[in-house]
Amino acid sequence: MIEHELVRELAEKSSTKIVMVVADGLGGLPLDPGGRTELESAETPNLDRLAATGTCGASVPVLPGITPGSGPGHLALFGYDPLEFRIGRGALEATGIGFELGPEDVAARGNFCTLDAAGRISDRRAGRIPSEESFKVVERLQGVRIPGVETFVKPVKEHRFVVVFRGKGLDGAVADTDPQATGVAPLDPVAASPAAARTAEVAREFVAQARRVLADEPKANGMVLRGFAAKPRLPGYEELYRLRAAAIAVYPMYKGLARLAGMTLVGNAHTLDEQIDTLAACWRDHDFFFLHFKYTDSTGEDGAFDAKVRRIEELDRVIPRIEALGPDVLVVTGDHSTPSLLKSHSWHPVPTVLAAATCRPDGAEKFSERHCVRGGFGIFPAKHLMLLAMAHAQRLGKYGA
Amino acid sequence: MIEHELVRELAEKSSTKIVMVVADGLGGLPLDPGGRTELESAETPNLDRLAATGTCGASVPVLPGITPGSGPGHLALFGYDPLEFRIGRGALEATGIGFELGPEDVAARGNFCTLDAAGRISDRRAGRIPSEESFKVVERLQGVRIPGVETFVKPVKEHRFVVVFRGKGLDGAVADTDPQATGVAPLDPVAASPAAARTAEVAREFVAQARRVLADEPKANGMVLRGFAAKPRLPGYEELYRLRAAAIAVYPMYKGLARLAGMTLVGNAHTLDEQIDTLAACWRDHDFFFLHFKYTDSTGEDGAFDAKVRRIEELDRVIPRIEALGPDVLVVTGDHSTPSLLKSHSWHPVPTVLAAATCRPDGAEKFSERHCVRGGFGIFPAKHLMLLAMAHAQRLGKYGA
Repeated sequence: MIEHELVRELAEKSSTKIVMVVADGLGGLPLDPGGRTELESAETPNLDRLAATGTCGASVPVLPGITPGSGPGHLALFGYDPLEFRIGRGALEATGIGFELGPEDVAARGNFCTLDAAGRISDRRAGRIPSEESFKVVERLQGVRIPGVETFVKPVKEHRFVVVFRGKGLDGAVADTDPQATGVAPLDPVAASPAAARTAEVAREFVAQARRVLADEPKANGMVLRGFAAKPRLPGYEELYRLRAAAIAVYPMYKGLARLAGMTLVGNAHTLDEQIDTLAACWRDHDFFFLHFKYTDSTGEDGAFDAKVRRIEELDRVIPRIEALGPDVLVVTGDHSTPSLLKSHSWHPVPTVLAAATCRPDGAEKFSERHCVRGGFGIFPAKHLMLLAMAHAQRLGKYGA
Repeated sequence: MIEHELVRELAEKSSTKIVMVVADGLGGLPLDPGGRTELESAETPNLDRLAATGTCGASVPVLPGITPGSGPGHLALFGYDPLEFRIGRGALEATGIGFELGPEDVAARGNFCTLDAAGRISDRRAGRIPSEESFKVVERLQGVRIPGVETFVKPVKEHRFVVVFRGKGLDGAVADTDPQATGVAPLDPVAASPAAARTAEVAREFVAQARRVLADEPKANGMVLRGFAAKPRLPGYEELYRLRAAAIAVYPMYKGLARLAGMTLVGNAHTLDEQIDTLAACWRDHDFFFLHFKYTDSTGEDGAFDAKVRRIEELDRVIPRIEALGPDVLVVTGDHSTPSLLKSHSWHPVPTVLAAATCRPDGAEKFSERHCVRGGFGIFPAKHLMLLAMAHAQRLGKYGA
């Protein structure tokens, strides 16, 4: 990324502080055409004040029309081009359950399935066995031993689990073993590139041993593995931006994403108020603070318009506590939109506001989708938000004489 | 650059004329949050009229958040991607003092320093000797002779000077000799690539001879050399755009930048009125006119808000004289922002207006940062401004059938 070359060249040490509040899935849609979005329906006097004095914009996480997952959405906010830096499915799943991937790890997502006597898949989800049952099956798999490789098997939910192989010379380029059909046997793990030959061999050995261990399971007697992936190589915040970055998140997925970007996980907060307590407590030791608020997304996913409105208002109420700490730059944004109307992530640009002493008035008066589209940042790639935050924090030198 | 491929393919000869007025450092900030910028405080009836009838936009010189120097800022306005086309420090410094670089030249910036008896740097700026003294030292260096190479030594200011080596097979890839510390000797000039071996040798010979010549100087008895660079290879205006381009600038730096883009320097104006006289006098002989106005930047750098306002008003008053010449396209913009609040260049987008008979109404009523952000060009890369000027001058054919 040319942005990374620039930032490496221009980033300067400073004592200024940047807070980035990510309200997951913040952007929304009106329930009726032409009506108000969740954000426009919420009473947000504090966010409106930031919008009036700061600079607003509508950030595009990936490209217009592209709906991002949590991975690409956050990578963009952290300043990584989500089209260049990809987190493989296996690595994201491992990250999402709080597994800390190392440099020698390859992770894959696993689904238990039911095999018939001939070894053909009869149920691709093992009858969607409940998590409690599945956890016991996972425990049995934890006894599998492969020479020269450390193996971790972790439960996710229902029939899903994660397997991580740790060892020298492993590589993520192994094809999925899921035939995406019943009546046929799972595919053999096959290397998609010569570098992954050893990894495919390890996976075959794992599958073979698992088959023997699970032979007496009534439902989960087989498995398919998908999304083999190593830990992505992201240049970290310290190296790129010269920022000591702290992440204050509640859910493992977002903690994991922050850790991949080289942030330090701070505190053990469960509520938003506790998150602000943590922010205050670690204020002196860091320059950049990523604060993740999950519930604007989960209410959107539930299709709960009013609940999302209340969650936005809950976020608005803590803004003064953040301002009281005296950040030089305060950003409030989201990793993508999650309109309750759609009950899912969407491609719509994300309302974003940046407040700093160096903001130019842009005519935006409220923090809303409508005002942000016409704000001083316009409609802009989310991957540029960190450049703007760094500039307003006076942490970037001049490019060229 | 894909833009250059397009323009080479599509540029057509025409009798239309384009004037680009660059008010250096035009964009600003309010002194108080939410207040008026310098441009918004100025009385600018003529620029406002252009804004109301023309198309406005906010140009981004390099990337969001990136503060450009004069070099990248102007390259972008001239249609060169400032991330692809870089002017090395030495070449820019030589250009800035009015030295016309040739294709066989390599330029470096020099700093006089004081060496102790053991040859170690005791003062990195030779006691910041005054320019008059430094000029005499430079004169002594002008006697240095290196076989097969022509050498130019030119004073800049205080302890700073420029050295240019002219000869076949020279290359700018020579490392700085500045150890960035006292108590150690200057580094030897070392080639950073094989192509620069001869240049490094030439520089070593220059330093060795200089050492002997300056041995009796009380302060400036040594030197460090930095930013070795050849003349950048920019495709010229005639070749790219089929435009006969004239530059009407007062300061050497901007004359130099225009010359690098293949423009012809016209006249010898010192005041803005004289610049307009020059414009009128050379109107028939050129198709494109770059008119550089320095004082919106220098007042910004001085932190002189009111003085910058008056300079903007001064510029506004000459607009009718330019219009009277009947340009088909009149652009008023800046190479970057220089808010008096910051007393320096900044990353904020630059207010830009283009007036032509083919402009679509965009609702912008005044020439101001606020209106420009919402104008018909939106927030756009400065490198695209020349494409827009060419299009409105009806000088670009259709792409594809």
